[in-house]
Amino acid sequence: MKRLLRGGWPAGSLQEANVNLWRSAGYRVRIPERNLFPVVDDDDLDLVLLRSQEIPRYVARGDLDFGIAGWDWVVENGCEKRVKEIGKLVFSKKTRRPVRWVFLVHEDAPFRNAWDLRGKTVATELVRTTRKWFRDRKVDARVEFSWGATEVKPGRFCDAVVDAVETGVSAKENGLRIIEELLTSAPLFLANKRAFANPRKREKMEDIYCMLKGALDAEREEMLALNVPRMSLQAVLGLIPALRAPTVTNLSQDDWLSVSAAIDTSVVRSIVPRLKRAGARDIVVYPITKIIR
Amino acid sequence: MKRLLRGGWPAGSLQEANVNLWRSAGYRVRIPERNLFPVVDDDDLDLVLLRSQEIPRYVARGDLDFGIAGWDWVVENGCEKRVKEIGKLVFSKKTRRPVRWVFLVHEDAPFRNAWDLRGKTVATELVRTTRKWFRDRKVDARVEFSWGATEVKPGRFCDAVVDAVETGVSAKENGLRIIEELLTSAPLFLANKRAFANPRKREKMEDIYCMLKGALDAEREEMLALNVPRMSLQAVLGLIPALRAPTVTNLSQDDWLSVSAAIDTSVVRSIVPRLKRAGARDIVVYPITKIIR
Amino acid sequence: MKRLLRGGWPAGSLQEANVNLWRSAGYRVRIPERNLFPVVDDDDLDLVLLRSQEIPRYVARGDLDFGIAGWDWVVENGCEKRVKEIGKLVFSKKTRRPVRWVFLVHEDAPFRNAWDLRGKTVATELVRTTRKWFRDRKVDARVEFSWGATEVKPGRFCDAVVDAVETGVSAKENGLRIIEELLTSAPLFLANKRAFANPRKREKMEDIYCMLKGALDAEREEMLALNVPRMSLQAVLGLIPALRAPTVTNLSQDDWLSVSAAIDTSVVRSIVPRLKRAGARDIVVYPITKIIR
Amino acid sequence: MKRLLRGGWPAGSLQEANVNLWRSAGYRVRIPERNLFPVVDDDDLDLVLLRSQEIPRYVARGDLDFGIAGWDWVVENGCEKRVKEIGKLVFSKKTRRPVRWVFLVHEDAPFRNAWDLRGKTVATELVRTTRKWFRDRKVDARVEFSWGATEVKPGRFCDAVVDAVETGVSAKENGLRIIEELLTSAPLFLANKRAFANPRKREKMEDIYCMLKGALDAEREEMLALNVPRMSLQAVLGLIPALRAPTVTNLSQDDWLSVSAAIDTSVVRSIVPRLKRAGARDIVVYPITKIIR
Amino acid sequence: MKRLLRGGWPAGSLQEANVNLWRSAGYRVRIPERNLFPVVDDDDLDLVLLRSQEIPRYVARGDLDFGIAGWDWVVENGCEKRVKEIGKLVFSKKTRRPVRWVFLVHEDAPFRNAWDLRGKTVATELVRTTRKWFRDRKVDARVEFSWGATEVKPGRFCDAVVDAVETGVSAKENGLRIIEELLTSAPLFLANKRAFANPRKREKMEDIYCMLKGALDAEREEMLALNVPRMSLQAVLGLIPALRAPTVTNLSQDDWLSVSAAIDTSVVRSIVPRLKRAGARDIVVYPITKIIR
Amino acid sequence: MKRLLRGGWPAGSLQEANVNLWRSAGYRVRIPERNLFPVVDDDDLDLVLLRSQEIPRYVARGDLDFGIAGWDWVVENGCEKRVKEIGKLVFSKKTRRPVRWVFLVHEDAPFRNAWDLRGKTVATELVRTTRKWFRDRKVDARVEFSWGATEVKPGRFCDAVVDAVETGVSAKENGLRIIEELLTSAPLFLANKRAFANPRKREKMEDIYCMLKGALDAEREEMLALNVPRMSLQAVLGLIPALRAPTVTNLSQDDWLSVSAAIDTSVVRSIVPRLKRAGARDIVVYPITKIIR
Repeated sequence: MKRLLRGGWPAGSLQEANVNLWRSAGYRVRIPERNLFPVVDDDDLDLVLLRSQEIPRYVARGDLDFGIAGWDWVVENGCEKRVKEIGKLVFSKKTRRPVRWVFLVHEDAPFRNAWDLRGKTVATELVRTTRKWFRDRKVDARVEFSWGATEVKPGRFCDAVVDAVETGVSAKENGLRIIEELLTSAPLFLANKRAFANPRKREKMEDIYCMLKGALDAEREEMLALNVPRMSLQAVLGLIPALRAPTVTNLSQDDWLSVSAAIDTSVVRSIVPRLKRAGARDIVVYPITKIIR
Repeated sequence: MKRLLRGGWPAGSLQEANVNLWRSAGYRVRIPERNLFPVVDDDDLDLVLLRSQEIPRYVARGDLDFGIAGWDWVVENGCEKRVKEIGKLVFSKKTRRPVRWVFLVHEDAPFRNAWDLRGKTVATELVRTTRKWFRDRKVDARVEFSWGATEVKPGRFCDAVVDAVETGVSAKENGLRIIEELLTSAPLFLANKRAFANPRKREKMEDIYCMLKGALDAEREEMLALNVPRMSLQAVLGLIPALRAPTVTNLSQDDWLSVSAAIDTSVVRSIVPRLKRAGARDIVVYPITKIIR
Repeated sequence: MKRLLRGGWPAGSLQEANVNLWRSAGYRVRIPERNLFPVVDDDDLDLVLLRSQEIPRYVARGDLDFGIAGWDWVVENGCEKRVKEIGKLVFSKKTRRPVRWVFLVHEDAPFRNAWDLRGKTVATELVRTTRKWFRDRKVDARVEFSWGATEVKPGRFCDAVVDAVETGVSAKENGLRIIEELLTSAPLFLANKRAFANPRKREKMEDIYCMLKGALDAEREEMLALNVPRMSLQAVLGLIPALRAPTVTNLSQDDWLSVSAAIDTSVVRSIVPRLKRAGARDIVVYPITKIIR
Repeated sequence: MKRLLRGGWPAGSLQEANVNLWRSAGYRVRIPERNLFPVVDDDDLDLVLLRSQEIPRYVARGDLDFGIAGWDWVVENGCEKRVKEIGKLVFSKKTRRPVRWVFLVHEDAPFRNAWDLRGKTVATELVRTTRKWFRDRKVDARVEFSWGATEVKPGRFCDAVVDAVETGVSAKENGLRIIEELLTSAPLFLANKRAFANPRKREKMEDIYCMLKGALDAEREEMLALNVPRMSLQAVLGLIPALRAPTVTNLSQDDWLSVSAAIDTSVVRSIVPRLKRAGARDIVVYPITKIIR
Repeated sequence: MKRLLRGGWPAGSLQEANVNLWRSAGYRVRIPERNLFPVVDDDDLDLVLLRSQEIPRYVARGDLDFGIAGWDWVVENGCEKRVKEIGKLVFSKKTRRPVRWVFLVHEDAPFRNAWDLRGKTVATELVRTTRKWFRDRKVDARVEFSWGATEVKPGRFCDAVVDAVETGVSAKENGLRIIEELLTSAPLFLANKRAFANPRKREKMEDIYCMLKGALDAEREEMLALNVPRMSLQAVLGLIPALRAPTVTNLSQDDWLSVSAAIDTSVVRSIVPRLKRAGARDIVVYPITKIIR
Repeated sequence: MKRLLRGGWPAGSLQEANVNLWRSAGYRVRIPERNLFPVVDDDDLDLVLLRSQEIPRYVARGDLDFGIAGWDWVVENGCEKRVKEIGKLVFSKKTRRPVRWVFLVHEDAPFRNAWDLRGKTVATELVRTTRKWFRDRKVDARVEFSWGATEVKPGRFCDAVVDAVETGVSAKENGLRIIEELLTSAPLFLANKRAFANPRKREKMEDIYCMLKGALDAEREEMLALNVPRMSLQAVLGLIPALRAPTVTNLSQDDWLSVSAAIDTSVVRSIVPRLKRAGARDIVVYPITKIIR
């Protein structure tokens, strides 16, 4: 029986984060032990695990209705105009910052920038994009495919590599130096253009994205609730960096109000002591699992 | 010092789920390493771990005031009328569906139904109940006790087995076919009849069951809270399948209301996008640990 | 670059509990694999892991601005008057009871109290405090340093030990008997006196303590929310042991009120059934991560 | 394709020890994750995992050609004369002593011996054997099937249990007292009588047993090798408790001999120092994996 | 300081097996946690972990003196004539059989052989070799790079894949059918040609290979030792499949001889019972860690 | 019942190595979960786990007959002349080199040697020995007890530390510099002097030490066996660094000899290829578990 949507999930480095995200969004997910077809409790979905490197190609061709993959591989596959981006899903574990693909050379190498690589050998997994970069700048360099272990190559097996870095710290620890940025990339929820033109498929894909995004946002927010005497309300509200106005309710006890708002986890610890000084009482923080504004 | 209630907890397959449930219900539970007497922080309780197979027998005799065991073993022990059922606790991990005891034969065997087993050998742990089933139908079959491994027996060591299945998938994978259902069974909170007639014991047992049930229900529900303009209230309420009316509060900001309701985890992801389209804002979902309606 | 505050975290038995507490309080904490400098996402803090035994000494000297250590080691280091106590943090895992340092002898030994130890050998890690105890009482005993394993020593390698016990159960199981208490001790958030006199440092330290305390209190409380008809409100409120008055809100549905309060986890299971009998409906319990009253 | 021999391996408590023994004997064994048919690299064998309780029954009936199970279950199944015992395999982990099935009562119970159980209730897994024991002695007692947890039953749920003990230590720790022995039992390599009469099957079964026994014996023996001057030979040989004469070889260096012998691991440490004092040199001990004398 | 030899070790699927082999051969090996330079206790070696895919290329270029990689990647890199093969190291875990690269199609696909793939899409990691195969046979097919997950692709994302199989079982379980073999491949110890021409480097590389091979061979052999009366010697020797003549020694006891030989682990269990029947006594089997014939 | 010998085993860093050594020597050892009295299968021994720091003190006093502890703590306890050293047991895991206690300062500190520490603060666990070192040299320095974490202290909490290092690498990584050596230390098997004077106790202690030493030596040796034509014998023997002469046996095949010898594991891989070149055949290496020369 054919299902409404065929989707591609990223295998490899994003796999666990992606599976956890779907679980947080409310799906029961099971990855059978010896196959690549994730089982979820939604009869509309027919899923397959694939490497991010290939997902954009298959979404573009229509082998998949949707897929989750980084912008980097959309570009490497030359699919920028052949897929529809429904939204970003920045679920990288460490920093939530987009990944950067950069030119790296040995710290002692004489290259100051990527133009200096004229006539040199560059190893990368992003061969097509790197070659285009050089071609656009009329730099003649040899680009060869690299099967990982890029951190040991510059100066030993090639002159430079183009690789993805999150913070750059680990590159530095390996004695490498960044000389140029090629592109930045975040995970995307991609749709095939024809599937996106089908209203039923489109609504379903947007609903899924809405829940994935709601679960992702909830990972870094917590709910803050407190009571405050009416006269201190403005002081308290002034301290809360809510994206929308906090929810304010009258307590049955006159002159006291209840205030609640979702706030970013990372600022809770600096706001709470100030709220208390501003007159808030019974300040409670509790976890949330989804937030859709 | 004698304690108010002596209770039997299931050892074996239900053990972990039962212990976790008591913990969720608020008890501190410790299973000492080398004995069978669970320690909980309630001085009224004197607990012992026993196989479900025997618990109904001991509850009926009064060796236990209460016990947790499946209906299957109530029947096998012939205790249907000799124990009081306080309530169900469907905490089976996979499906929350009751267990079914069925007649299974090899997929290639000629038997179409259990009447075809006349003169044949049937292996089961539920010897007494199976024998009664045949006797009631005047079918003459040989029923022998089986120590597990029932999936390999039909066609090798006997003609059919009577075994418990949850979904039937694993039976099918083992090349077996279901030809008849014997009974269905769910875990029960059972009380000895005399203990139940004692008001103090009864209230205590009902309170425990109330909390276990509240924790069990909370496992599959989440709290949904949202803000909505007064004019969209009815549209929003129409989408929420709460067992009771949702809680609606006026916000101090005129014309906005706050709505909250516990809803089944499995429907959250289909309701939330529709709530948003209906005008709800600041939709938040958060976990609960107990719910008593 | 010098940071605002230099702090000492306890290594050893309190280490994990302390790290978890800071995490609960909202800090991202990383303990690098091969060093003793915890990394947190607060640029004001410069932290180091040290044994509790030494922390008071360094806080007193000003080598540290603040430290977390037990009162026992404040006393042993003779720092009672040389450090400022900002507050207690009773995060011992098992009991949350303060630790007691006691004199222990073999159960068959003839000693009835610590005065009987005249002329005897006492092994302890708290040498200075124990010697002072004897000196104050003019008892002449030999006190020697003990490197742990105190439970096997009385009667074998010395006559008595002074050691820390939580419940005393394990001492009993080892065949030891308590004959005297030396002191009781809880973990403290300690400040150097000069640092405390600096307003910016003081506010920062008090804010940290506020959040640690809020996270610690939240570990043993849960939020209880329920709806109740107005006429049953007093009965319901009478059952709730809130430290402050519960929060009461009018529902938009006349004659119904919503009540919420944080209550101690250990009493939830005895209160909830009574609330239900008193007329409460839709009783929900949910977890909190911080509470500041 | 039908294989030469169908064999039954014990599931449950003996499973791991049995699998390891076959591996030690030189078989590559794989237990597929979700089924009960062990895979070994011997095309003559068709194996199935079954509980020891049932194996004798199936060996007697001819459903299996051979099986590994304890004497206890041979008796309980009434198969003493219906199966052929090829040999013992005492591979119990702790003690290598045979298991004893004994009558156990609560340490405070008034029963001095099993005759005192007249009119009482006895719970056991060995129902048939226990009933026969009482019948043979004309003692009228009620014997009911027990699903384990026997250590908590005497005095609570019945008057006595009949259970297997290895050392008796754990029974004592549970407050139980042994009042009678029912039988002793060791694991056996059992053959169906008809299969044993078939020469090809018999030789194969005896060869398997030979290797299992050789691997089992090797677990508790080590090879000892040493050099000794001819004049000290007798003194050295006198110290070696070899079952057969040790192997003695002339070294090319005149007047020196080399001696080697397999000896029981547990005596190595007491013999070696004495060998050295007796003149042995270059004493080496090395592990063996099979020994067949 | 420059070391004598620079070597490439395979990262990925062969990594663990290779490291264990060097350890068995007598090297102390440490893989530092965050880098790719294995540390061994041999000052002549400068090692780096690289994917097998790239190792032949670097050995050919002289960036490495030696490397361990499969023949498949020698071919894919076009290095058949540009590297020197010192010897094979068949250390694949499951079967010790060489790996086969085969054309796989969906079991329901119409393709009978690789010539039927004219005009179709083939995904593979071995792009160059596959293209050459088609070119040599004048078949026009589209070959695209595949990042793994090949088992789900035929019929979904392409028409056929070229992938490595060991036994073919797992391909079959995934519903795929083998229609053609591309090549077979075993791990090789490869040397750069110039390095091999250098006598000191060559001897060192051959010594390393000698020890690796000796450790690898020892993994599947055991030492068999036995005593035998002179008159039974020929019968016993006739049963031993030693590659070279077994070692026979005279015992000091006349008319008895001692025989020892290394034999393949997989035949021990069939030979030993026959040796015993032929008159051998005190048959002992013991493990070896290296064997060089 | 009093046992022949009371022994002290080191708890802490040497504990696991010591327990494993006794096991290798042939003792069955069990460390009960919640106590400090190791159980071994030798009725003469009564053992207790204690910190190395205290063991020399108790051996000297006669509270223990023997103990295993480092020379460092013999010195710190002032027991150099009060205990009898039976032998060394250098079982440190990494290097088998003795431990060195050294003066460490921050790499940027101005101190060139320990004399420069005049007037400074030194933290160490070896307070008594360090004070004596300064006193002997008439250097006035303040020595205070340190509870570990010494690597962070120099420059922060004191001026120098005296700590144990194995290789010095980790000290360097922590930014510390060694300026002086205090003492070197290896683990010792210590006896109480009176116990050593008792012949029965002495023999028993020497036998134990003999087996512990034999097991320890076997950890770094392997047995090498080979066949060689008589004419190549001298060449082969010349390559074997045996402590005693290798064992040479005549094969029944004229002109061939068998040679065996225990050699150090670390040289096997360099000797074997040379043996082969010298004419050796059937070279086999096998593990040993004890060696006593």
